[in-house]
Amino acid sequence: MGKTIKIGVIGAGRIGKIHAANIIKNFPDVEVKAVADIHAASIAEWAAGLGIANVYDDYKKIINDPEIGAVIICSSTDTHSQITIEAAQAGKHIFCEKPIDYDVDRIHAALDAVKKAGVKFQVGFNRRFDHNFKKVRDLIQSGAIGELQIVKVISRDPAPPPVEYVKVSGGMFLDMTIHDFDMVRYLTGSEVTEVYANAGVLVDKAIGEAGDVDTALISLKFKNGAIGMIDNCRQAVYGYDQRVEILGTKGGISVGNDTPTTVVVSTDSAVTQDKPKYFFLERYMESFEAEMKEFFNSVLQNKDTVVSGIDGLKPVLIGLAAQKSYKEGKPVRLEE
Amino acid sequence: MGKTIKIGVIGAGRIGKIHAANIIKNFPDVEVKAVADIHAASIAEWAAGLGIANVYDDYKKIINDPEIGAVIICSSTDTHSQITIEAAQAGKHIFCEKPIDYDVDRIHAALDAVKKAGVKFQVGFNRRFDHNFKKVRDLIQSGAIGELQIVKVISRDPAPPPVEYVKVSGGMFLDMTIHDFDMVRYLTGSEVTEVYANAGVLVDKAIGEAGDVDTALISLKFKNGAIGMIDNCRQAVYGYDQRVEILGTKGGISVGNDTPTTVVVSTDSAVTQDKPKYFFLERYMESFEAEMKEFFNSVLQNKDTVVSGIDGLKPVLIGLAAQKSYKEGKPVRLEE
Amino acid sequence: MGKTIKIGVIGAGRIGKIHAANIIKNFPDVEVKAVADIHAASIAEWAAGLGIANVYDDYKKIINDPEIGAVIICSSTDTHSQITIEAAQAGKHIFCEKPIDYDVDRIHAALDAVKKAGVKFQVGFNRRFDHNFKKVRDLIQSGAIGELQIVKVISRDPAPPPVEYVKVSGGMFLDMTIHDFDMVRYLTGSEVTEVYANAGVLVDKAIGEAGDVDTALISLKFKNGAIGMIDNCRQAVYGYDQRVEILGTKGGISVGNDTPTTVVVSTDSAVTQDKPKYFFLERYMESFEAEMKEFFNSVLQNKDTVVSGIDGLKPVLIGLAAQKSYKEGKPVRLEE
Amino acid sequence: MGKTIKIGVIGAGRIGKIHAANIIKNFPDVEVKAVADIHAASIAEWAAGLGIANVYDDYKKIINDPEIGAVIICSSTDTHSQITIEAAQAGKHIFCEKPIDYDVDRIHAALDAVKKAGVKFQVGFNRRFDHNFKKVRDLIQSGAIGELQIVKVISRDPAPPPVEYVKVSGGMFLDMTIHDFDMVRYLTGSEVTEVYANAGVLVDKAIGEAGDVDTALISLKFKNGAIGMIDNCRQAVYGYDQRVEILGTKGGISVGNDTPTTVVVSTDSAVTQDKPKYFFLERYMESFEAEMKEFFNSVLQNKDTVVSGIDGLKPVLIGLAAQKSYKEGKPVRLEE
Repeated sequence: MGKTIKIGVIGAGRIGKIHAANIIKNFPDVEVKAVADIHAASIAEWAAGLGIANVYDDYKKIINDPEIGAVIICSSTDTHSQITIEAAQAGKHIFCEKPIDYDVDRIHAALDAVKKAGVKFQVGFNRRFDHNFKKVRDLIQSGAIGELQIVKVISRDPAPPPVEYVKVSGGMFLDMTIHDFDMVRYLTGSEVTEVYANAGVLVDKAIGEAGDVDTALISLKFKNGAIGMIDNCRQAVYGYDQRVEILGTKGGISVGNDTPTTVVVSTDSAVTQDKPKYFFLERYMESFEAEMKEFFNSVLQNKDTVVSGIDGLKPVLIGLAAQKSYKEGKPVRLEE
Repeated sequence: MGKTIKIGVIGAGRIGKIHAANIIKNFPDVEVKAVADIHAASIAEWAAGLGIANVYDDYKKIINDPEIGAVIICSSTDTHSQITIEAAQAGKHIFCEKPIDYDVDRIHAALDAVKKAGVKFQVGFNRRFDHNFKKVRDLIQSGAIGELQIVKVISRDPAPPPVEYVKVSGGMFLDMTIHDFDMVRYLTGSEVTEVYANAGVLVDKAIGEAGDVDTALISLKFKNGAIGMIDNCRQAVYGYDQRVEILGTKGGISVGNDTPTTVVVSTDSAVTQDKPKYFFLERYMESFEAEMKEFFNSVLQNKDTVVSGIDGLKPVLIGLAAQKSYKEGKPVRLEE
Repeated sequence: MGKTIKIGVIGAGRIGKIHAANIIKNFPDVEVKAVADIHAASIAEWAAGLGIANVYDDYKKIINDPEIGAVIICSSTDTHSQITIEAAQAGKHIFCEKPIDYDVDRIHAALDAVKKAGVKFQVGFNRRFDHNFKKVRDLIQSGAIGELQIVKVISRDPAPPPVEYVKVSGGMFLDMTIHDFDMVRYLTGSEVTEVYANAGVLVDKAIGEAGDVDTALISLKFKNGAIGMIDNCRQAVYGYDQRVEILGTKGGISVGNDTPTTVVVSTDSAVTQDKPKYFFLERYMESFEAEMKEFFNSVLQNKDTVVSGIDGLKPVLIGLAAQKSYKEGKPVRLEE
Repeated sequence: MGKTIKIGVIGAGRIGKIHAANIIKNFPDVEVKAVADIHAASIAEWAAGLGIANVYDDYKKIINDPEIGAVIICSSTDTHSQITIEAAQAGKHIFCEKPIDYDVDRIHAALDAVKKAGVKFQVGFNRRFDHNFKKVRDLIQSGAIGELQIVKVISRDPAPPPVEYVKVSGGMFLDMTIHDFDMVRYLTGSEVTEVYANAGVLVDKAIGEAGDVDTALISLKFKNGAIGMIDNCRQAVYGYDQRVEILGTKGGISVGNDTPTTVVVSTDSAVTQDKPKYFFLERYMESFEAEMKEFFNSVLQNKDTVVSGIDGLKPVLIGLAAQKSYKEGKPVRLEE
């Protein structure tokens, strides 16, 4: 079987490795021709195990390879926009991990380059492809619960990242909540018009000393009139808490957590069930595959990607507004 | 407010006290004129606290009181049929705790006396009045799940009774399963035609030494073609387990346990919820009130009781068949 | 049995009737000597049915009756503070339905009168006595989930009240959310320091035309550092939605809705379970009894009431702040 | 990457195709060198799509290929024992779909051949590898619920197979219940000593006319003293019902169904959740992969297989006993 398309993976940290392995396992039509990482030596063995022929320390070798038709950008966030621009100029289709950038001007520059080059561009908001959330979106769109009134997302990590990570993360609103800003846009099909961030440092003082918050309730207004709330915490000791709850004029929808099993144990001291799946690798593995499938479908069938450049931009704008709201202690409106 | 009817309670053990208190609290039309108990002295204070004017050690004083229109028989099982006969002959309406008797001939004698006297007679199968099981019955009768195929009752006590009680209990099938034999008749509206008792002593050897079993799976065939199973254990350490599960040609019904609260606690070690309500006093208090309401309705409005004499007889016949099945190790058919 | 205390019920609308009936049924020590209502004629039959001897159209007859030791104030909100003052001056213990008043000065006047008279005073925040919420409070106080981080209350009615009611209700924040303001104080044991009301008219335009909102997400800050959110809607078509969800440093707690039964029906089209209990009469009947029990305990045993005057005042202050926040579109701090 | 082992798949019906595709996707070390099917022409395109080089109509070509080290037997049941014997004699390791045979003598012949040849042999009882049931087994073995008392398996198909299939299926007890007979052995770690089959034709009369039953409650006794029950129906209109419930002296375990999502929709008419995953392809795909992983581990690391020949024999013996019990209407003991 000849491979239909050759690709390069740029950045082979945790998520880059996941994407590379998923593609090799699930897409026989796609050849991972090369992987680039600034720590090339440290990934050589991993790449060999997957049968990836080329390991570079300079991503430009991928950009400059005329055989490579698409790139998967999984490098550190501060490099996303620059690599996007170069890849677009080289005519390559682009899958870019979220966020595109923390700087709005640089996002615009990247999206402009994509537009000019006419290449496909998809942002890594994988949760749109999750079985639970996709069903919620479908139900809302079907009119099953009427007009939207209240939209709530609960998104809590099992444990906080190292403070060193927090310092370079762009802050919780851009690093963690950004997924939830995308989720509310995805679920509602509407835009956020105002944000008010009620937040604090309730998990780890060191996070506060690093200039960030670790717990937040973010109040939202939507263009369609609905109101919303995002509930974030860097630490839920019982595991990765990923839920959604919607109220509409004709009904409500709620999504519980996925669990490893459905086993319930009853003893004289308690009735216990499974904790949620521990973290995003367990919880969202299926969606990492599904987003790639959609990306390759878009490339191979020349269709629009399902998570566009504008979908990459908007959550950053909302995140920046949330930061401003928290700093100033008042609601912030988003410009049209 | 004048009381419409005066009654006497015969036997003031646990269940007798419950009925008396419930009646006084909930039925302003009904006057508990007297209570009789062979240990009259020990209940005097309790009776005074409820404002019951007369406490007798001889139930015949109630039988012979022409002012008393109905009796609630809560004495020990071996006295039920005899008191029923005397009360019926005295023209009193009768609510009799289950079972009527362990001896089929004596049951027939009691039911004959009731019939001859033309008095109301209701047996204390309170679970028919439970909110959960009543809804199952209503759903089945509505045709919501089509024709019945499989009928299962799970009925487990939180802890075994004292062995002294076991010895005089009539055996688990007549003491405990009898409620479930009634339940399957109530739910299906059909009669049991065959029973096979798979049982053992798996909780307490002393129960076996007393000649009884403590754990059983009782296989049933019904006249309407359905098959069924009753799951009994004298001990479920997590609490009183009272469930039902039905399969029909158009769907299934299941009933979970009632719990004290809906609280779920999630920690790093477990996700825990409430155990079932501990035992029948917590779980079925509502149904003890409801069965009395139906009894007084029948008496005051001259209607048939909702749990008839035949409903008192049939579960005993099934229980005796289960005993025979267990002893002989084979299925036993019930006579028409 | 002699009655230990005689009381008068002032206002016999829906909640007044509930309290009167509950007291008569459940507290043999308490005699409901009189009930007063401006529509005395319309309640005469009801009162006679319960055996209440005296029905007045002027509550002052209750205030002036030296035999009456306590009053239950269930009249319209605008009369609560005045009647409280008069009852206190007459030396009567007071159970007052929520809210005490919409006017802070009048609340202070009422509480001053209570203090001066040294009578017991309890406000009708019945949900504190609910089995579910009480368990949450107990768990929090036990330290089971560590320090509080996020406190959320969901409180939605099944259907909006008539617009005529909305117009005189004091507004959703004082009429409906006031229960939730009390709930967060009760659960956290801490005070609200800031409130931001994100709200809209998403159920019925007529409510908006009457100057009120019908849907709200109210963001809260607490003195102990926790943050919170109240989710209100005048209409949840699936029924009365009464839940709570807490995150702490050592775990989370969530409370689901109570349902009439635990029956689950599975057919080829769906797996369905019960909707929540329909409205507050079904859902909170138990708590209406429990709050009365606590009130009479306080009176008869000369103990502090469990819902004090300050507990009546604070939720009104928060509600007024929420109104201001909504009007001005920004967070409002509460004065110390 | 060189492939470590080459295998042949014998029989490419539904389950054969699943195994072949899973192996190619998940086991880079394993090469599917050939597939044999009596309808070779009809599978040619499918095999080409997977890159399988050789498609035979005669399985003996696989048996006689010295390069092939293991075979996956997925042909019709009546051929399993014969092919097992030939494959064993040719020195090939064997994964054989359940059941090995309906004839006990032929099973013994096959197992003897396996033993003589010293090859690995694993039977396709995939449900042992399911996440839910594996956890139940682990909990039981850990002693979490003490000594076993009651073991129940519910196993219902969403829809009955065609009557033509029923006629050659070996009967429900050997075709469908056989999985459950294996499950109770797996969960309990004990042997069935007696079986009583309460069964009927309650789904489709045509199944009865074909000499089979479609609904059964099968009562079991275990060597360790526990009692058990298997609940089977060829049709549960709400989907594939696969549950287990265990009672032990220290607690109970129950397993619910897996569902496609955790979404709950509440409207004014109902609160609905997902039906169970529809059938075994959705429900058990994970376990089909896992059993292959264990098989190849056994082969490549020269370890005992986790589902042995005796594990293939015993469920057939229980199934034959169940058939006899149903025919004779009485319990049947299994020989030691």
